[in-house]
Amino acid sequence: MIKKKYLLTPGPTPVPEKVLAIASEPIIHHRTPEFSKIYKEMSEDLKYVFQTKNDVYTLTSSGTGAMESAVVNLVSKGDKVLVINGGKFGERWGQIARTYGAEVLEEKIEWGDDLPTERLEEILDKNKDIKVVFSTLSETSTGTVYDIKSFSEVVRNYDALLVVDGISGLAATECPMDEWEIDVLITGSQKSLMIPPGTAYISLNDKAWKVIEKNSTPSYYFDLKKYKKSHAKDTTPYTPALTLIIQQREALKLIKETTLEGLLEHHKILGNAMRSAIKALDLELFSKKPGNILTSVKVPEGIDGNQLVKSMQYKYMAHISNAQDPMKGKFFRIAHLGYMGAFDVMTAISALEMTLMDMGYKFEHGAGIRAAQKILQENWK
Amino acid sequence: MIKKKYLLTPGPTPVPEKVLAIASEPIIHHRTPEFSKIYKEMSEDLKYVFQTKNDVYTLTSSGTGAMESAVVNLVSKGDKVLVINGGKFGERWGQIARTYGAEVLEEKIEWGDDLPTERLEEILDKNKDIKVVFSTLSETSTGTVYDIKSFSEVVRNYDALLVVDGISGLAATECPMDEWEIDVLITGSQKSLMIPPGTAYISLNDKAWKVIEKNSTPSYYFDLKKYKKSHAKDTTPYTPALTLIIQQREALKLIKETTLEGLLEHHKILGNAMRSAIKALDLELFSKKPGNILTSVKVPEGIDGNQLVKSMQYKYMAHISNAQDPMKGKFFRIAHLGYMGAFDVMTAISALEMTLMDMGYKFEHGAGIRAAQKILQENWK
Repeated sequence: MIKKKYLLTPGPTPVPEKVLAIASEPIIHHRTPEFSKIYKEMSEDLKYVFQTKNDVYTLTSSGTGAMESAVVNLVSKGDKVLVINGGKFGERWGQIARTYGAEVLEEKIEWGDDLPTERLEEILDKNKDIKVVFSTLSETSTGTVYDIKSFSEVVRNYDALLVVDGISGLAATECPMDEWEIDVLITGSQKSLMIPPGTAYISLNDKAWKVIEKNSTPSYYFDLKKYKKSHAKDTTPYTPALTLIIQQREALKLIKETTLEGLLEHHKILGNAMRSAIKALDLELFSKKPGNILTSVKVPEGIDGNQLVKSMQYKYMAHISNAQDPMKGKFFRIAHLGYMGAFDVMTAISALEMTLMDMGYKFEHGAGIRAAQKILQENWK
Repeated sequence: MIKKKYLLTPGPTPVPEKVLAIASEPIIHHRTPEFSKIYKEMSEDLKYVFQTKNDVYTLTSSGTGAMESAVVNLVSKGDKVLVINGGKFGERWGQIARTYGAEVLEEKIEWGDDLPTERLEEILDKNKDIKVVFSTLSETSTGTVYDIKSFSEVVRNYDALLVVDGISGLAATECPMDEWEIDVLITGSQKSLMIPPGTAYISLNDKAWKVIEKNSTPSYYFDLKKYKKSHAKDTTPYTPALTLIIQQREALKLIKETTLEGLLEHHKILGNAMRSAIKALDLELFSKKPGNILTSVKVPEGIDGNQLVKSMQYKYMAHISNAQDPMKGKFFRIAHLGYMGAFDVMTAISALEMTLMDMGYKFEHGAGIRAAQKILQENWK
């Protein structure tokens, strides 16, 4: 049989055909008015996605690089910071902050659980010297989406900044930077922004810039003051990943055509369809507060979770993600993120049903695809 | 919502990603050893697809051009020929043959019906002066696949050549040229050969070449003697569509990896899954002898067939084909051809179910996708 590949992971995500094609155009030089025009257009459109009046800087790095840039620019040695850790990516904030000598207060949340806003208030009340709160919008390791709006309403009552990792969440779930008064917001290229990995974006408000100006941590590549200075001249301080920037401009055109509102609604419909299918298959969601970026599903009793993921990936070529350590094999993750469409959800569930049939799981065959199809048809726009 | 496009027509068909990408490589010149090497490799692999020891010539034309080349090279003015006409493409043989002054005996078959081999024998018996029998392997306008093997067993008892239009059928349904003693076999690039439209392929056995040598119909671009001569030097007489040839070589590599046997089996599984879904939706097949290339489905009572096709195409972006005149709106055609995979069948049926729900057709929702999924899972290789 001809096996087509389906990328159903929460990053990288599929890249629209037009955006793929543009990468094969001849390479231009980045110190030219031609590049600056592209960079400027992309930067304007990123402001639309971030829903901010602040500038958005482009780093040639993975999302982790942008996280590091937030830390090294905002946190001086010995500063007390709060890290909300509900999974691999919350954990990463702590690892980076500790690397640079911060005093890290880590609020560990059970994977898949939510952080009640009251708890955040309690911590900040007891630790008035916290300078920065690092949170995740959508925790990619579990699919949980945190209530950043409420977090912000709390944090703004204290002398602390709120830094949000929106790497897998931005443009897929609501997160208007200015309206929610987020001080620093980060995202990556390979999620809902629909291009390959390699660039990351960061935006900071004036409050954050005031902290940066007093910051003493040494940094070179991730020194955001340099990015600010170059940005004013419509360029980057170091050689940028220019084909990715050209692709990003193209992808942002598509996003603007869809509208941000339309894109969030799209993810909502796909998320609902996916969850409805999971329920119809008598499977259980792993996250108590699942977002519309990816769906984590508990491996049912008697089924080998690692084998399930491998069969999806290599037999049916529907590339989903296993849970990460220490939960590997206990749940799996199916994304409905970025340039994934309604029929990608149908493909994912169909491949899941076929895999479950192969593995002897008892369920009503076709119940999942029927349930998803119903939601998709009713909400088709 | 993000709407992804799905091409589910019986030509053009989707092009594999690697094959698309190779077209963006720099253009080479065609009068070079570099091109000749590519041409030679492609031509060898075409022999594998045709299952022949004869040479296969590449025309830069649509499939119709290759049909015309067969007629102008084989048929002299006044020659009596038999055309088996069970649809638009059978009809085309007659149109071309008449253009060049042939005496055309046309065996009209009801659309969707088969031609019993006995009837062919009867015609040939009554018309021993028939020089060429023109048939279609897979009639794209109806999805019917004719019994070329039996046709050949009959024709070889007479002093006539059998010319087969395998444009939509070759490499998707069985048609071994040498084993079945087909005198002339034609195909196009945009069907099971998995590249964009623009090239067509023709192969002829010694019996056909003997007729060509005595032929008096004037022709220039389609004069196959010129192609034969150039082919011996690993090139074409006129400027070829060289990016398509480069793509065809790449696509043929994929086909060889899958194996011809595997590719035929793939089409069989997809065809079975599609027909099983149609049955489960209480819909009726249009063709009495449906092949594994495309499935023609009767529009059910009370449903506007033209509207159904438009909704599939523009609302769900699943591009299927309407029936052609005079049957437009009476049935529709869904292909499972070339680089279409199992989940493309699921997408097609899901989009069809959603459309039928929209239009108020009464059926068991999900029955089609469940039925197809069952066949696909049981036969997954």
